[in-house]
Amino acid sequence: MSHPAGDVFLADCPARLAIEIIADKWAVVVVFALSRRPCRHGELVGLIGGISRKVLTQTLRKLQGYGLVERHVYADARVEYSLTELGRTLVVPITALTEWADRHGEAVTDFQESQRDGSDGR
Amino acid sequence: MSHPAGDVFLADCPARLAIEIIADKWAVVVVFALSRRPCRHGELVGLIGGISRKVLTQTLRKLQGYGLVERHVYADARVEYSLTELGRTLVVPITALTEWADRHGEAVTDFQESQRDGSDGR
Repeated sequence: MSHPAGDVFLADCPARLAIEIIADKWAVVVVFALSRRPCRHGELVGLIGGISRKVLTQTLRKLQGYGLVERHVYADARVEYSLTELGRTLVVPITALTEWADRHGEAVTDFQESQRDGSDGR
Repeated sequence: MSHPAGDVFLADCPARLAIEIIADKWAVVVVFALSRRPCRHGELVGLIGGISRKVLTQTLRKLQGYGLVERHVYADARVEYSLTELGRTLVVPITALTEWADRHGEAVTDFQESQRDGSDGR
Protein backbone atom coordinates (compact mmCIF):
# COMPACT_ATOMS: atom_id res chain seq x y z
CA MET A 1 0.00 0.00 0.00
CA SER A 2 1.41 3.40 -0.87
CA HIS A 3 1.01 6.63 1.09
CA PRO A 4 0.81 10.14 -0.34
CA ALA A 5 4.14 11.94 -0.01
CA GLY A 6 2.56 14.56 2.27
CA ASP A 7 2.19 11.84 4.91
CA VAL A 8 5.82 12.38 5.78
CA PHE A 9 4.51 15.08 8.14
CA LEU A 10 2.62 12.54 10.21
CA ALA A 11 4.57 11.19 13.15
CA ASP A 12 3.29 7.61 12.84
CA CYS A 13 3.72 7.16 9.10
CA PRO A 14 6.11 4.57 7.63
CA ALA A 15 7.67 7.35 5.57
CA ARG A 16 8.76 9.09 8.76
CA LEU A 17 10.37 5.91 10.06
CA ALA A 18 12.23 5.56 6.79
CA ILE A 19 13.54 9.11 7.10
CA GLU A 20 14.72 8.25 10.59
CA ILE A 21 16.68 5.31 9.17
CA ILE A 22 18.58 7.39 6.69
CA ALA A 23 18.89 10.40 9.00
CA ASP A 24 22.12 8.86 10.28
CA LYS A 25 25.41 9.99 8.84
CA TRP A 26 27.09 6.62 9.33
CA ALA A 27 24.18 4.64 7.92
CA VAL A 28 24.36 6.71 4.73
CA VAL A 29 28.11 6.27 4.36
CA VAL A 30 28.00 2.51 5.11
CA VAL A 31 25.20 1.89 2.58
CA PHE A 32 27.14 3.97 0.04
CA ALA A 33 30.24 1.83 0.65
CA LEU A 34 28.32 -1.48 0.40
CA SER A 35 26.61 -0.31 -2.80
CA ARG A 36 29.95 -0.84 -4.55
CA ARG A 37 30.57 -4.38 -3.31
CA PRO A 38 30.22 -6.62 -0.24
CA CYS A 39 32.82 -5.78 2.40
CA ARG A 40 34.34 -7.17 5.57
CA HIS A 41 34.18 -5.19 8.81
CA GLY A 42 37.86 -4.28 8.67
CA GLU A 43 37.58 -3.17 5.04
CA LEU A 44 34.78 -0.79 5.97
CA VAL A 45 36.80 0.67 8.86
CA GLY A 46 39.66 1.30 6.43
CA LEU A 47 37.39 2.78 3.78
CA ILE A 48 35.34 5.12 5.97
CA GLY A 49 37.42 7.87 7.52
CA GLY A 50 36.65 8.64 11.14
CA ILE A 51 34.38 5.68 11.95
CA SER A 52 35.33 3.58 14.99
CA ARG A 53 35.02 -0.23 15.01
CA LYS A 54 32.31 0.07 17.66
CA VAL A 55 30.19 2.61 15.79
CA LEU A 56 30.55 0.57 12.59
CA THR A 57 29.32 -2.54 14.43
CA GLN A 58 26.33 -0.61 15.81
CA THR A 59 25.53 0.85 12.38
CA LEU A 60 25.71 -2.57 10.68
CA ARG A 61 23.43 -4.10 13.36
CA LYS A 62 20.94 -1.27 12.94
CA LEU A 63 20.92 -1.69 9.15
CA GLN A 64 20.50 -5.47 9.56
CA GLY A 65 17.57 -4.81 11.91
CA TYR A 66 15.90 -2.74 9.19
CA GLY A 67 16.41 -5.50 6.62
CA LEU A 68 18.80 -3.35 4.58
CA VAL A 69 22.06 -5.25 5.19
CA GLU A 70 22.87 -8.98 5.35
CA ARG A 71 25.71 -10.67 7.18
CA HIS A 72 27.26 -13.69 5.46
CA VAL A 73 29.54 -16.14 7.26
CA TYR A 74 31.59 -18.21 4.81
CA ALA A 75 32.97 -21.72 5.35
CA ASP A 76 36.42 -20.26 6.08
CA ALA A 77 34.82 -18.11 8.85
CA ARG A 78 35.22 -14.97 6.77
CA VAL A 79 32.33 -12.56 7.47
CA GLU A 80 31.05 -10.21 4.80
CA TYR A 81 28.32 -7.61 4.76
CA SER A 82 26.21 -6.79 1.72
CA LEU A 83 23.07 -4.87 0.83
CA THR A 84 19.81 -6.81 0.68
CA GLU A 85 17.42 -6.28 -2.22
CA LEU A 86 15.62 -3.69 -0.06
CA GLY A 87 18.94 -2.09 0.87
CA ARG A 88 19.84 -1.69 -2.79
CA THR A 89 16.74 0.45 -3.33
CA LEU A 90 18.33 3.00 -0.96
CA VAL A 91 21.14 3.65 -3.42
CA VAL A 92 18.98 6.01 -5.52
CA PRO A 93 18.23 8.56 -2.77
CA ILE A 94 21.71 8.19 -1.28
CA THR A 95 23.29 8.96 -4.65
CA ALA A 96 21.09 12.07 -4.89
CA LEU A 97 22.32 13.00 -1.40
CA THR A 98 26.02 12.50 -2.10
CA GLU A 99 25.71 14.35 -5.42
CA TRP A 100 24.16 17.28 -3.56
CA ALA A 101 26.90 17.11 -0.95
CA ASP A 102 29.54 17.00 -3.65
CA ARG A 103 28.05 19.98 -5.47
CA HIS A 104 26.98 22.21 -2.58
CA GLY A 105 28.95 21.12 0.49
CA GLU A 106 31.55 23.80 -0.09
CA ALA A 107 28.90 26.56 -0.34
CA VAL A 108 27.76 25.58 3.16
CA THR A 109 31.25 25.68 4.65
CA ASP A 110 31.88 29.01 2.86
CA PHE A 111 28.68 30.41 4.40
CA GLN A 112 29.69 29.17 7.85
CA GLU A 113 33.11 30.78 7.53
CA SER A 114 31.57 34.10 6.43
CA GLN A 115 29.38 34.03 9.55
CA ARG A 116 32.32 33.26 11.83
CA ASP A 117 34.35 36.11 10.34
CA GLY A 118 31.44 38.43 11.13
CA SER A 119 31.86 39.71 7.58
CA ASP A 120 28.10 39.50 7.15
CA GLY A 121 27.86 42.43 9.55
CA ARG A 122 24.47 41.56 11.09
CA MET B 1 35.95 23.36 -6.81
CA SER B 2 34.27 19.98 -7.07
CA HIS B 3 35.29 16.76 -5.33
CA PRO B 4 34.94 13.24 -6.68
CA ALA B 5 31.95 11.48 -5.13
CA GLY B 6 34.26 8.93 -3.46
CA ASP B 7 35.53 11.71 -1.21
CA VAL B 8 32.44 11.24 0.92
CA PHE B 9 34.52 8.59 2.72
CA LEU B 10 37.03 11.15 3.92
CA ALA B 11 36.23 12.59 7.33
CA ASP B 12 37.32 16.14 6.49
CA CYS B 13 35.59 16.50 3.13
CA PRO B 14 32.82 19.06 2.54
CA ALA B 15 30.62 16.24 1.24
CA ARG B 16 30.73 14.59 4.66
CA LEU B 17 29.68 17.82 6.36
CA ALA B 18 26.77 18.10 3.97
CA ILE B 19 25.67 14.57 4.80
CA GLU B 20 25.81 15.53 8.46
CA ILE B 21 23.46 18.43 7.74
CA ILE B 22 20.80 16.28 6.17
CA ALA B 23 21.36 13.35 8.51
CA ASP B 24 18.79 14.93 10.81
CA LYS B 25 15.21 13.79 10.67
CA TRP B 26 13.78 17.17 11.62
CA ALA B 27 16.02 19.11 9.24
CA VAL B 28 14.72 16.95 6.38
CA VAL B 29 11.07 17.40 7.35
CA VAL B 30 11.42 21.19 7.92
CA VAL B 31 13.14 21.72 4.54
CA PHE B 32 10.44 19.58 2.91
CA ALA B 33 7.74 21.77 4.53
CA LEU B 34 9.43 25.05 3.52
CA SER B 35 9.90 23.81 -0.04
CA ARG B 36 6.15 24.31 -0.49
CA ARG B 37 6.01 27.89 0.78
CA PRO B 38 7.44 30.20 3.49
CA CYS B 39 5.94 29.43 6.89
CA ARG B 40 5.65 30.93 10.34
CA HIS B 41 6.94 29.01 13.36
CA GLY B 42 3.45 28.13 14.56
CA GLU B 43 2.42 26.91 11.11
CA LEU B 44 5.39 24.55 11.04
CA VAL B 45 4.53 23.15 14.48
CA GLY B 46 0.99 22.49 13.23
CA LEU B 47 2.18 20.92 9.99
CA ILE B 48 4.89 18.64 11.38
CA GLY B 49 3.51 15.92 13.62
CA GLY B 50 5.52 15.25 16.77
CA ILE B 51 7.91 18.21 16.66
CA SER B 52 8.11 20.39 19.78
CA ARG B 53 8.39 24.20 19.59
CA LYS B 54 11.85 23.98 21.11
CA VAL B 55 13.19 21.37 18.69
CA LEU B 56 11.71 23.33 15.77
CA THR B 57 13.50 26.49 16.96
CA GLN B 58 16.79 24.56 17.25
CA THR B 59 16.32 23.02 13.81
CA LEU B 60 15.55 26.39 12.19
CA ARG B 61 18.62 27.98 13.83
CA LYS B 62 20.81 25.13 12.64
CA LEU B 63 19.48 25.45 9.08
CA GLN B 64 20.01 29.25 9.21
CA GLY B 65 23.59 28.62 10.39
CA TYR B 66 24.18 26.47 7.32
CA GLY B 67 22.78 29.17 5.02
CA LEU B 68 19.83 26.99 4.01
CA VAL B 69 16.98 28.91 5.69
CA GLU B 70 16.27 32.65 6.03
CA ARG B 71 14.24 34.41 8.71
CA HIS B 72 12.17 37.39 7.58
CA VAL B 73 10.68 39.88 10.01
CA TYR B 74 7.88 41.89 8.40
CA ALA B 75 6.78 45.45 9.30
CA ASP B 76 3.82 44.02 11.24
CA ALA B 77 6.30 41.93 13.32
CA ARG B 78 5.21 38.72 11.58
CA VAL B 79 8.17 36.33 11.29
CA GLU B 80 8.43 33.92 8.40
CA TYR B 81 10.98 31.29 7.46
CA SER B 82 11.87 30.38 3.89
CA LEU B 83 14.51 28.43 1.99
CA THR B 84 17.50 30.35 0.64
CA GLU B 85 18.68 29.73 -2.91
CA LEU B 86 21.15 27.20 -1.47
CA GLY B 87 18.37 25.63 0.63
CA ARG B 88 16.23 25.15 -2.46
CA THR B 89 18.95 22.98 -4.01
CA LEU B 90 18.32 20.51 -1.16
CA VAL B 91 14.82 19.82 -2.46
CA VAL B 92 16.11 17.39 -5.12
CA PRO B 93 17.81 14.89 -2.76
CA ILE B 94 15.07 15.32 -0.15
CA THR B 95 12.41 14.48 -2.72
CA ALA B 96 14.40 11.36 -3.64
CA LEU B 97 14.49 10.51 0.07
CA THR B 98 10.78 11.01 0.71
CA GLU B 99 9.89 9.08 -2.45
CA TRP B 100 12.00 6.19 -1.20
CA ALA B 101 10.38 6.44 2.22
CA ASP B 102 6.96 6.49 0.61
CA ARG B 103 7.72 3.46 -1.54
CA HIS B 104 9.76 1.29 0.84
CA GLY B 105 9.00 2.46 4.39
CA GLU B 106 6.38 -0.22 4.83
CA ALA B 107 8.79 -2.98 3.73
CA VAL B 108 11.08 -1.93 6.57
CA THR B 109 8.35 -1.98 9.21
CA ASP B 110 7.14 -5.34 7.83
CA PHE B 111 10.67 -6.71 8.18
CA GLN B 112 10.96 -5.40 11.73
CA GLU B 113 7.65 -7.00 12.67
CA SER B 114 8.71 -10.34 11.19
CA GLN B 115 11.88 -10.20 13.32
CA ARG B 116 9.92 -9.37 16.49
CA ASP B 117 7.53 -12.25 15.86
CA GLY B 118 10.55 -14.53 15.66
CA SER B 119 9.00 -15.97 12.50
CA ASP B 120 12.40 -15.78 10.86
CA GLY B 121 13.48 -18.60 13.16
CA ARG B 122 17.18 -17.71 13.35
